[in-house]
Amino acid sequence: MSLCVVGSIALDSVETPTEKREIVLGGSSVFFSYAASFFTRVQLAGVVGEDWPREYTDLLNSRGIDTQGLQVVPGGKTFHWRGKYHRNMNDRDTLDLQLNVLADFKPELPSEYRRSKFLFLANGSPKLQMNVLEQCQGASFVVADTMDFYINTELDALKALLRRIDGLVVNDSEAKLLTGEDNLVLAGAAIRAMGPSFVVVKKGEHGAMFFGKEETYVLPAYPTPNVVDPTGAGDSFAGGMMGYLAQRDAFDAKTLKEALVYGTMTASFTVEDFSLDRLRKIEREDLDRRKEEYRRMLSF
Amino acid sequence: MSLCVVGSIALDSVETPTEKREIVLGGSSVFFSYAASFFTRVQLAGVVGEDWPREYTDLLNSRGIDTQGLQVVPGGKTFHWRGKYHRNMNDRDTLDLQLNVLADFKPELPSEYRRSKFLFLANGSPKLQMNVLEQCQGASFVVADTMDFYINTELDALKALLRRIDGLVVNDSEAKLLTGEDNLVLAGAAIRAMGPSFVVVKKGEHGAMFFGKEETYVLPAYPTPNVVDPTGAGDSFAGGMMGYLAQRDAFDAKTLKEALVYGTMTASFTVEDFSLDRLRKIEREDLDRRKEEYRRMLSF
Repeated sequence: MSLCVVGSIALDSVETPTEKREIVLGGSSVFFSYAASFFTRVQLAGVVGEDWPREYTDLLNSRGIDTQGLQVVPGGKTFHWRGKYHRNMNDRDTLDLQLNVLADFKPELPSEYRRSKFLFLANGSPKLQMNVLEQCQGASFVVADTMDFYINTELDALKALLRRIDGLVVNDSEAKLLTGEDNLVLAGAAIRAMGPSFVVVKKGEHGAMFFGKEETYVLPAYPTPNVVDPTGAGDSFAGGMMGYLAQRDAFDAKTLKEALVYGTMTASFTVEDFSLDRLRKIEREDLDRRKEEYRRMLSF
Repeated sequence: MSLCVVGSIALDSVETPTEKREIVLGGSSVFFSYAASFFTRVQLAGVVGEDWPREYTDLLNSRGIDTQGLQVVPGGKTFHWRGKYHRNMNDRDTLDLQLNVLADFKPELPSEYRRSKFLFLANGSPKLQMNVLEQCQGASFVVADTMDFYINTELDALKALLRRIDGLVVNDSEAKLLTGEDNLVLAGAAIRAMGPSFVVVKKGEHGAMFFGKEETYVLPAYPTPNVVDPTGAGDSFAGGMMGYLAQRDAFDAKTLKEALVYGTMTASFTVEDFSLDRLRKIEREDLDRRKEEYRRMLSF
């Protein structure tokens, strides 16, 4: 089954305690698409400026990612994020953020995209996410991400969106902010009460929690000693998860759990280098191999 | 097999965002002993003052905990800790700390204790821990805990101790402080290089990591919605872990992993009420039942 994603495409500048990279490929929908491409055909919608290197589109296409929905704005500049990680490699400061062409992005999805059964609304304004959802009449499994900025500034629009989606993927601090609950188990239940039938709370290096109708569980992150750059880990997680669901064309409880495991594995590779550099060096078999290690790790 | 523990015995005053308790039973060796008593016979050594309620000794004895090694100092006052938890229920402030009789505690272990095969050196001065270790000639499996205070003030004595023990149980911030490593996987390896053949890093609500000769793994905490008071969770974890090892009279890799799971289960009950109140209401079967839920949670 094909999978449609709408979200940011970025040129990132990233600094860690030991290294830095200038103007590298990034953005939520880029990490998502690449991660999902290990499993299924992806339709990517987003916007870039004239500075967008053609080779990046070629790279995405080489992974079977459909870029018909990629708008190139003549004379425009691509969304730019510059960030610096703290020593703990979890906290980070945004040093610069230039929305550029993303500020006026109005997705007009190609008709094929609108028939996709699986839809992921990556981080973005809830109004834009709702607009995309309304275009995608064929979507029967819709998952969204959101962030503190929209919880603080567009809560009503976000609540309206939550009533229309199947699942929400957020990080732990966002789950607490959205619900006012400090206990994540209670926060997960509170978000489900707002609409989505399941919620995934991402905890960074501590893994992810799942809240569904019948079950609650926690899956730890894969313990990699080699954390180079955490940028894109959450989006790769969502991409691995949704890619696997689309491949299996299923979203029952058992398949969802396997999908969370694949999301965890994909994210564990993403953090091992800057940008997509680590993901570009692996194959599906590497994900499966690490998944079996992970299974042994959690068996007793 | 019997299990000997030496550590603090306290009367705690605890405040959480919603409730408070004055002068309740606490202390590292008390939480440890009670948790271990679900699995094996425990020998507890520690010191209390005249204010120590006799009923607490009776409670411990009723669990088969040997209190021959409990010194009562005439005219003395029991160690007192007063703490207040933040809204997140993880961070806490120590509002008052009175060492009282603990300041001059010189353990003189009963001869039976000295023959125990399993020994746990709960949080305390590394010099005192070494003194206890030297008394316990029969101990062939020794695990210790430590804390930031001793890492900062008695590092040499702590390093000498690390060369003599089989395992160290510490929390995540202590592991980072002790090694200067921010990545816990690297910190775990660095502690092993200081002596212990295995290290357990406790991450509170995020579970625990194990570092051994042949394997590294992470086990998440059991996701309880009902966190009332986290005090004693780490000590209960260690008690459940060591109690199970002593019961099985083994410490091979497989048994150690099962022991970490039992530690996780014991701690998950401890946090569901103040002091020992929740542990006092459960039986070994409750631990086993939750363990099976936990196993299902981690299976995919």
